[in-house]
Amino acid sequence: MLTGAEYRASLADGRRVYADGRQVADVAGHADFVVPIAAAAGGYDRFWKPGDAVNEYLKPPESADALRAHGAMRADQLTHGTFTCLMTLLTAGDRIADVRPQGQAAARKFVAEALRRDIRMVETITDAKGDRALPPAKQSDPDAYLRVVARQADGVIIRGAKLHVSLAAMAHELMVIPTKAMKKDEADYAIACAVPANAPGVKIVSVGAPPHGDLRDSPIGAVRYNPQCFIIFEDVFVPWDRVFLDGETEHAASFAHALGLWLRAGSLAQAANEADAIVGMAQLVAEANGLEKVAHIREKITDMALHATMVRAAYEASMANGQVQPNGAVLPNELYANAGKYLAAAEHGLMLRHLLDIAGGSALTAPSHADFENPETGDLLRKYMATKPEVDGLYRTKLFHAVRDMTVSSYAGYHAIGQLLGGGGLNAQRVVMRGRYDFDRAKQFARDASGLGSNT
Amino acid sequence: MLTGAEYRASLADGRRVYADGRQVADVAGHADFVVPIAAAAGGYDRFWKPGDAVNEYLKPPESADALRAHGAMRADQLTHGTFTCLMTLLTAGDRIADVRPQGQAAARKFVAEALRRDIRMVETITDAKGDRALPPAKQSDPDAYLRVVARQADGVIIRGAKLHVSLAAMAHELMVIPTKAMKKDEADYAIACAVPANAPGVKIVSVGAPPHGDLRDSPIGAVRYNPQCFIIFEDVFVPWDRVFLDGETEHAASFAHALGLWLRAGSLAQAANEADAIVGMAQLVAEANGLEKVAHIREKITDMALHATMVRAAYEASMANGQVQPNGAVLPNELYANAGKYLAAAEHGLMLRHLLDIAGGSALTAPSHADFENPETGDLLRKYMATKPEVDGLYRTKLFHAVRDMTVSSYAGYHAIGQLLGGGGLNAQRVVMRGRYDFDRAKQFARDASGLGSNT
Amino acid sequence: MLTGAEYRASLADGRRVYADGRQVADVAGHADFVVPIAAAAGGYDRFWKPGDAVNEYLKPPESADALRAHGAMRADQLTHGTFTCLMTLLTAGDRIADVRPQGQAAARKFVAEALRRDIRMVETITDAKGDRALPPAKQSDPDAYLRVVARQADGVIIRGAKLHVSLAAMAHELMVIPTKAMKKDEADYAIACAVPANAPGVKIVSVGAPPHGDLRDSPIGAVRYNPQCFIIFEDVFVPWDRVFLDGETEHAASFAHALGLWLRAGSLAQAANEADAIVGMAQLVAEANGLEKVAHIREKITDMALHATMVRAAYEASMANGQVQPNGAVLPNELYANAGKYLAAAEHGLMLRHLLDIAGGSALTAPSHADFENPETGDLLRKYMATKPEVDGLYRTKLFHAVRDMTVSSYAGYHAIGQLLGGGGLNAQRVVMRGRYDFDRAKQFARDASGLGSNT
Amino acid sequence: MLTGAEYRASLADGRRVYADGRQVADVAGHADFVVPIAAAAGGYDRFWKPGDAVNEYLKPPESADALRAHGAMRADQLTHGTFTCLMTLLTAGDRIADVRPQGQAAARKFVAEALRRDIRMVETITDAKGDRALPPAKQSDPDAYLRVVARQADGVIIRGAKLHVSLAAMAHELMVIPTKAMKKDEADYAIACAVPANAPGVKIVSVGAPPHGDLRDSPIGAVRYNPQCFIIFEDVFVPWDRVFLDGETEHAASFAHALGLWLRAGSLAQAANEADAIVGMAQLVAEANGLEKVAHIREKITDMALHATMVRAAYEASMANGQVQPNGAVLPNELYANAGKYLAAAEHGLMLRHLLDIAGGSALTAPSHADFENPETGDLLRKYMATKPEVDGLYRTKLFHAVRDMTVSSYAGYHAIGQLLGGGGLNAQRVVMRGRYDFDRAKQFARDASGLGSNT
Repeated sequence: MLTGAEYRASLADGRRVYADGRQVADVAGHADFVVPIAAAAGGYDRFWKPGDAVNEYLKPPESADALRAHGAMRADQLTHGTFTCLMTLLTAGDRIADVRPQGQAAARKFVAEALRRDIRMVETITDAKGDRALPPAKQSDPDAYLRVVARQADGVIIRGAKLHVSLAAMAHELMVIPTKAMKKDEADYAIACAVPANAPGVKIVSVGAPPHGDLRDSPIGAVRYNPQCFIIFEDVFVPWDRVFLDGETEHAASFAHALGLWLRAGSLAQAANEADAIVGMAQLVAEANGLEKVAHIREKITDMALHATMVRAAYEASMANGQVQPNGAVLPNELYANAGKYLAAAEHGLMLRHLLDIAGGSALTAPSHADFENPETGDLLRKYMATKPEVDGLYRTKLFHAVRDMTVSSYAGYHAIGQLLGGGGLNAQRVVMRGRYDFDRAKQFARDASGLGSNT
Repeated sequence: MLTGAEYRASLADGRRVYADGRQVADVAGHADFVVPIAAAAGGYDRFWKPGDAVNEYLKPPESADALRAHGAMRADQLTHGTFTCLMTLLTAGDRIADVRPQGQAAARKFVAEALRRDIRMVETITDAKGDRALPPAKQSDPDAYLRVVARQADGVIIRGAKLHVSLAAMAHELMVIPTKAMKKDEADYAIACAVPANAPGVKIVSVGAPPHGDLRDSPIGAVRYNPQCFIIFEDVFVPWDRVFLDGETEHAASFAHALGLWLRAGSLAQAANEADAIVGMAQLVAEANGLEKVAHIREKITDMALHATMVRAAYEASMANGQVQPNGAVLPNELYANAGKYLAAAEHGLMLRHLLDIAGGSALTAPSHADFENPETGDLLRKYMATKPEVDGLYRTKLFHAVRDMTVSSYAGYHAIGQLLGGGGLNAQRVVMRGRYDFDRAKQFARDASGLGSNT
Repeated sequence: MLTGAEYRASLADGRRVYADGRQVADVAGHADFVVPIAAAAGGYDRFWKPGDAVNEYLKPPESADALRAHGAMRADQLTHGTFTCLMTLLTAGDRIADVRPQGQAAARKFVAEALRRDIRMVETITDAKGDRALPPAKQSDPDAYLRVVARQADGVIIRGAKLHVSLAAMAHELMVIPTKAMKKDEADYAIACAVPANAPGVKIVSVGAPPHGDLRDSPIGAVRYNPQCFIIFEDVFVPWDRVFLDGETEHAASFAHALGLWLRAGSLAQAANEADAIVGMAQLVAEANGLEKVAHIREKITDMALHATMVRAAYEASMANGQVQPNGAVLPNELYANAGKYLAAAEHGLMLRHLLDIAGGSALTAPSHADFENPETGDLLRKYMATKPEVDGLYRTKLFHAVRDMTVSSYAGYHAIGQLLGGGGLNAQRVVMRGRYDFDRAKQFARDASGLGSNT
Repeated sequence: MLTGAEYRASLADGRRVYADGRQVADVAGHADFVVPIAAAAGGYDRFWKPGDAVNEYLKPPESADALRAHGAMRADQLTHGTFTCLMTLLTAGDRIADVRPQGQAAARKFVAEALRRDIRMVETITDAKGDRALPPAKQSDPDAYLRVVARQADGVIIRGAKLHVSLAAMAHELMVIPTKAMKKDEADYAIACAVPANAPGVKIVSVGAPPHGDLRDSPIGAVRYNPQCFIIFEDVFVPWDRVFLDGETEHAASFAHALGLWLRAGSLAQAANEADAIVGMAQLVAEANGLEKVAHIREKITDMALHATMVRAAYEASMANGQVQPNGAVLPNELYANAGKYLAAAEHGLMLRHLLDIAGGSALTAPSHADFENPETGDLLRKYMATKPEVDGLYRTKLFHAVRDMTVSSYAGYHAIGQLLGGGGLNAQRVVMRGRYDFDRAKQFARDASGLGSNT
């Protein structure tokens, strides 16, 4: 296993990363990446064990209890993302075994190696997509979806772009999979493989700046903001033992499906915890303001607690109805996981509206730490930000900084997009939920309630 | 145990029941009561066993599995209501034991006797209440809340009214409990006891007529409509061994609280099943109309399935997190039960709106069975109510009758009120949910997410 | 002009009306029709003037002020429906003039005659429709949409059914129009004409019974419930001077479109008034219960008032932005009319939920007038239904009867369907609203706000 | 009148402004203020006229048409804010005339002088407030609400803080008014006056940084972001001719009320325009992606258009029902203005959720202009950001920059708070709406519909 320091060093591997219009010479030292790399390095150190040990977080959970225990473990985003990738490869590997046994074998071998090498991996799925009204093979630019442009004795050459990739600049491996189902004439687009982040032809453009300035004023974003990447594959060579799928169009969606499943499973517990945290923040700020007994404030917090409870109910139902998969890993129940994820995403904005509405304008206008340290204004601000003897002005200001970072800062925006669009957007979650809902049982319930026999 | 026939005969016990402005001479034979009495008699026959057996449905479930199994058993409403009353007496009996041990003993003895006698009981809780802005002791009419008007060596005399009582005309016993917490000066209102339905001074006014005419046109209401009762207690004597609480104001709410808990626990599984049935009905009617692939119809059904899934998730979470109570019976988790019940009640109207919107106007204007049997119109109606070779006009008409009975008939209205107000109304469910929500944990989550220590 | 008595007499014209599986011998005397016929007769008497006068309500409004004044006039439903039909014929007549000038002439002549004869007319638009996934010409039963089965020198023969027709049994004329746009090969379905209610081959099946029993207990339904009709046209002959469209498929939808416009225009003011009435009823019942100052009740009523205000705002905006049509009549603005109608329909259920939630269970269980008149129960019920010296028990009971009739009676269900589906259902209103929304302006606003020039 | 250059020069008046913990030496040159000062200077130049002219935008509109015309004029935020202040002073001045005629006179004189001097003014209303559960006079810190600490022959001395003040650093005058109604014993808190921004004792702490870096990537925020100010009054002297209210507690709320009215009136048209712009942006991005015909996208855009239409309906209804006030200026109707403002604020988040959901992840991850200018990545990004021949990659990227700035950037957060909390927060808007709603009329409607006479 690697230590955090070894991890940092491993990033100087020739990768081509761009930020703000310039190539990044020293990834580990670049201001935009300091925070997520520190988090990832911390993760290495936390899970480090001597000898041939394997990272505890990355082992497949093989029972409902193990799954629940895994849900309760804390990990940095990069380690969690790696877990999602490895589970996806195992799950999808089994599903494609009938038509591409060598793909299943490659996936299993890759996972075993990844655990041994203790590397970190990110998923890259979303293509540039071109005109959404047309399929891949009909695009005016054939590279709008990543594709195989040549096949050689030793591997394939791929070209295209993958968007919305979190943490790519600080990962070792990119999991490249098709973004959707493919038709028979789209064989070149049915490609799944693993590509090192420093492979020739890979360009990683980092987009979105993390909070800057005095990070004390951005208490949440300062530790959670992850730059996104726009990755370009300029005719990148991938050897066969890293190719999991190549041309088996009937299985093009198997990877995306497995990924969606693990992504949503992983995010539901997180969403439940966050919903509770937002309720708690609303209650803290109401108390700090002396408003916790006002009727409309209480009603809003009650609405918020109801929402948080329902998100957690979906999580509980999903865990209580999980099933062991053929590959040994346990999956949470998909119906409840998708319904809960949808609910959490759909109502996130309303939760934030309530929080802001309760907090009031200081969520925007709370002074900075620097203002507090300025002798000409510090004591006055502390005086006026206080509300009662037991609520200090600086404490309350920090609370508002947190509210701002939860609701209206650029971190809040970054996070809102993740909440809403992570795992495919509201519609994707609805479609999957609908696909798992048991309509036959519902129709039988309806017939029973109506005194109807079956008609057809 | 009693048979259905013995149960019917038992109702001729001198009880005073009124309907449509007249006293009912023969309760078992009255048109308004035919349906619920048939259901109750059927319940007796279904659960009947020889010898000293006890009704299976009425035994307290003593493990989470038993609770789940009980939830899956089917029973008529009167038997289910009796179960709710007996569980309430056991639960509340334990809670009052410290201040009124003879009340606990009376409750336990009453339950044992009830099982032995195989009687049916209904809960009566809601008082007339007078001016809601004033407490019981401040009302212009002191009888606005049921109270003890005299205490004697052998028992108490009670006066007042209890409203919104389902199935009282066909039950043997009335469980009389305070509707809310009482203050110290309201001791006469802190009365809980059991009163036979035929006790002198009890007048049962039946309100609300069940579906009439050709019951084939009311397929749901014809089997589920229960007349409500307005019960007046004109100085009714209750012997001490039927008095569970008398004057211990600190425990006035213990009975209402226990009842609310068992009511909501009992109704959540029912609500989940009903939500699925409404989804199924929407799908059936969309298919019968040939509309199941139309985008906005699919989206509405998806919304409905999401709702049904979340109600069931709350039920699953509630069962998975139940706890054994001191009295041996297992209670579902209250937080999830209340949140789920609230969700089901709050969104019931939207479910019906979607169903109606999908069904269209025939939910109102589908012809009657008599119209189908009229030779001048029958064939024509069948022709025009059909939609395709495999969807017969009469089948589709029956489906619309069911939709009507689910959405807009007087039964639908009766049921909507039960959904919305059963167990205390939306606000009551919110208040209980809020009381069970763990705000301390939520605040700690907020502090952790914000990098805040505790301030106070 | 006719008097009410003359109107009643005019209904004995040989028409074939069916109810409850039997032909109705005396329409004016049938129990199901008493209420609407009384309302219609009252309308005749109210608007009656001597000589050659024309019904004031039926004259086309020719300015925004006249339109507003017309909106403020009260009329019975049959007279209002007649107005809607005549306006529809004038509007659609003008629109088809280019391709069928004789149709425009027939429409104008018919309207003039209708005013002179002082008759009443109802619109019949919805066909049986068969399989909604197939167009008229592809149905397994070609009569699923009403069509011309023969053309003769003197007129056409039509066959089919029209559903969801209000008040047909008590009208003189049926306006028959296509339910939707037709394709070129569906010429036989592009038929619009006027058919007397007593024309040979017309069978009117009345569906849905009005409130029965003691009508004092149904204060709203007793005066507003209108039975719906299912009308069958069995090879009905229509002379050419009553044919407005025959085969001009490009104009098949012109009548439906004009009708939709006048229907929604007519119903928006009504919806605004009703929304206010529901707010008022909630406030009255809260006051009668002594609950008007409770926070959650106030919040609910505030939500209701907000909704009522927005519905009225749409009406005000629609009137303030009306336009004179080529035919001289002023039309309210369609964009606002549709948006307002959609809002009113979509939120009607929530308004009723709030009303019920505020009223509580007595909305279902308030005793009947007969119970009040029963000497054994009357005084007791009055005592217990009272809440304070100034709120009498009978007054409060009547208030609950009204709440019941607004929310959960079979009249409430009948009305809910009208609210939701009248004028075509929620989706139809959305589609029309979308069609009127100015997307080009919106896109320009977006470009201006974004600093974007135009791209395409 | 002043030119833009004269305005810039006028800001070097000794004012004490702080930002990022340091005093700002040159306000007009400070990076945080460049954008709003440029906008304000542009406003001066736009409205400039020679001679004794008065700024057109600042003249009170004296008819409904003038009001509508004023609503259609464009102005920078500082000029618009000045208009709001002057209207507020005139309106409130009239209302206090009975108890403080010299206050009315002072207000009128101040307004006339302000027009003559062509100055800019901002409103300062929100106090620090301390413990919201306590009134001003009961706070542990008596300065929690701004108050008069001394009265002298020539004026008063005030102390306290005003929060959430937009653009104070670049205005000439501060309008200081009580934040709420005051009780009789709170006379020192009933103070309204005008204070120059550079008055001794005034400290202006600027909070919140505008977008930084390459402003091309922040197309909306770069022109609309206004830093907020936290203003401290350290024993500031105000001469009597600038004091509008001093101690007349019965009129403490008159200024806040007048301000709320003008604020909401001013913001409703803006909200309607913005809602349309968001619809347009959603349509533009759907078209750029080739998704404009996908059913769920169309439905979302229809929902958005419905919302925008209803906000505009409220504006239209408010204008159509405006009334001339005693002071000559016309006020839009308050009921509709508040209902519309509430609707716009409450649903703003949902509008943004729909926009984001339609746009997808590129709202976050669209590359920067610098990335496009980097020769190693520019062409590739342009290639992959394009979707079809007619949609250029750079155009689409700019569109996403605008979407980001509308939804998730720090500007979007700043704006969301303004939308939600401007003019007092959702609850304030509800309270005012409720106060203007005609409950008596609604109750009469209810009685009429129910066949009830009046009871009380």
